[in-house]
Amino acid sequence: MSELRYHPFLDQWVIVATHRQDRTFLPPDELCPFCPSQPGLPPTEIPGDFDIVVLENRFPSMLQSPPEPSVGGEVRPSLGACEVIVYSPDHAASVSTLPLSQIQKLARVWRERYIELAGRPGVEYVFIFENRGKEIGVTLTHPHGQIYAYPFLPPIPLAELRAEHLHGGESDLWRRWISEEAGNIREVFRNDLFVAVVPFCARYPFEVWVVPFEPLSSLREFSPSDLDALAEAIQVVAKAYDKLFGFPFPYIMAMHQQPTVDGFARTRFHVEFYPPHRSANKLKYLAGSESGAGVFINDTLPEESAVLLRAALLTPA
Amino acid sequence: MSELRYHPFLDQWVIVATHRQDRTFLPPDELCPFCPSQPGLPPTEIPGDFDIVVLENRFPSMLQSPPEPSVGGEVRPSLGACEVIVYSPDHAASVSTLPLSQIQKLARVWRERYIELAGRPGVEYVFIFENRGKEIGVTLTHPHGQIYAYPFLPPIPLAELRAEHLHGGESDLWRRWISEEAGNIREVFRNDLFVAVVPFCARYPFEVWVVPFEPLSSLREFSPSDLDALAEAIQVVAKAYDKLFGFPFPYIMAMHQQPTVDGFARTRFHVEFYPPHRSANKLKYLAGSESGAGVFINDTLPEESAVLLRAALLTPA
Repeated sequence: MSELRYHPFLDQWVIVATHRQDRTFLPPDELCPFCPSQPGLPPTEIPGDFDIVVLENRFPSMLQSPPEPSVGGEVRPSLGACEVIVYSPDHAASVSTLPLSQIQKLARVWRERYIELAGRPGVEYVFIFENRGKEIGVTLTHPHGQIYAYPFLPPIPLAELRAEHLHGGESDLWRRWISEEAGNIREVFRNDLFVAVVPFCARYPFEVWVVPFEPLSSLREFSPSDLDALAEAIQVVAKAYDKLFGFPFPYIMAMHQQPTVDGFARTRFHVEFYPPHRSANKLKYLAGSESGAGVFINDTLPEESAVLLRAALLTPA
Repeated sequence: MSELRYHPFLDQWVIVATHRQDRTFLPPDELCPFCPSQPGLPPTEIPGDFDIVVLENRFPSMLQSPPEPSVGGEVRPSLGACEVIVYSPDHAASVSTLPLSQIQKLARVWRERYIELAGRPGVEYVFIFENRGKEIGVTLTHPHGQIYAYPFLPPIPLAELRAEHLHGGESDLWRRWISEEAGNIREVFRNDLFVAVVPFCARYPFEVWVVPFEPLSSLREFSPSDLDALAEAIQVVAKAYDKLFGFPFPYIMAMHQQPTVDGFARTRFHVEFYPPHRSANKLKYLAGSESGAGVFINDTLPEESAVLLRAALLTPA
């Protein structure tokens, strides 16, 4: 079963989806469902060879035709979509090691899926993200990301929209942010169109945001050269992470952009990376303060993290 | 260094506290800093024998006399307090195994600390919590809890206050909640004064709330018999957890109650438990949807979790 239950004390929807308990968990390489099917082996989820492929999640928490809720209470069907984007047929690849041209193709797929999912009835927010690494709970290691199409506005993007409004609108707040962060001590990388920064207010160790200089609101507004520049900035961040401690660095990559229903002020498209490592061998946990009170404690200094990430970029691969 | 940095996009404060990187990490039993000092061993943090003891956290993220912030920007000193409550001299004990009388004493310590910290200048919220288990990131296994005194209202209690206001005030919302949940399919335990429930909108697997039937706003309003009944309900939940899969069950226990500055509507004191296990050998991770969008996916059915917890309580210890 899968349904949305209302949390009246936090004024948010919770997805309850019990069939996900049985989802595939770290299978051996030869049973990877995201590798191309091979003669002599059980069929995978992908019949033949491919470049980039979008699949429906086999264990979706939201569906285009969701079942009716099983119980009474403040509940609604789990309308929406859960998609998987397999980045490459290469099982061992990652955003940091794929050719840049592949990430640029991926950025085009993100835009196409954003637009298509935005057009579906009932979809209010298209959330593109990647979970990387078993420390994040990843159950399949083949390089892939995900897209959730929610039938409501999620709490974190909603909080950003509210704060932008509070601070004079997205263009005011982001213009100020860019004037403080870009070209400054916490900048990690920039190209002509995007800047990558460890933000002053980083909640996670080694948190990085990738933000366009121009007020682009969603992938819909991106030109081909915007997409290419975004792909480059994202890949540079992933490379900096992998070189930081010399191992594939786990992270959550979250893309925030314009809701796909009318009625919301413009927001600024941006990408946030949350790595769980606070050092090479220590993890950050979301414990009492974070989970119970919502107050993040960052054990790393953003200014130092930026120095380390810039230095990592300069070391040979 | 330790300071509070403002996150303008989420309208919340982030604690940046870098000295915490070096905190004691799972020391061997004989070097436990919360055991009573023993002749022939290095001194611990506690000179002699004790019953329950409150200590200042040796690696505090907030302080009564915080340093001035090191950098410009939207930043303020990390005024506040971080305390540790050691529940017992017994290194191997826990909330579920201590005598009930000890948990009842502990409830009196919680109340005393709430009142004392509430009286300190600048303290706006006293947050009592316990992190249990290495899966939560606990660095010391000796039974203990913590208290943070924040100089601002944390996001989660603030969201609850807002939602209570939205839904007609705390007494309306909680009265309705109790009429739906108490004595119903999701109830795990009750005594005369408190009910323990897996809530309909549980965000975490096996999440349990302990809520008073009467509109008690904070520990300040608790009579001795209220404290005794709270202690019993909390211990029953901890026992149910430990019997559920036959091992000490990790959890975050978070106490929500009235802010300690004026100007806020009444709220309902309650305790929320968030366990990280979704089954005996699988953990729930706060990945893309939870961390990036704020949308929780619960892979367990609250109605089933309540059945399992009630059954666990009936099995012999």
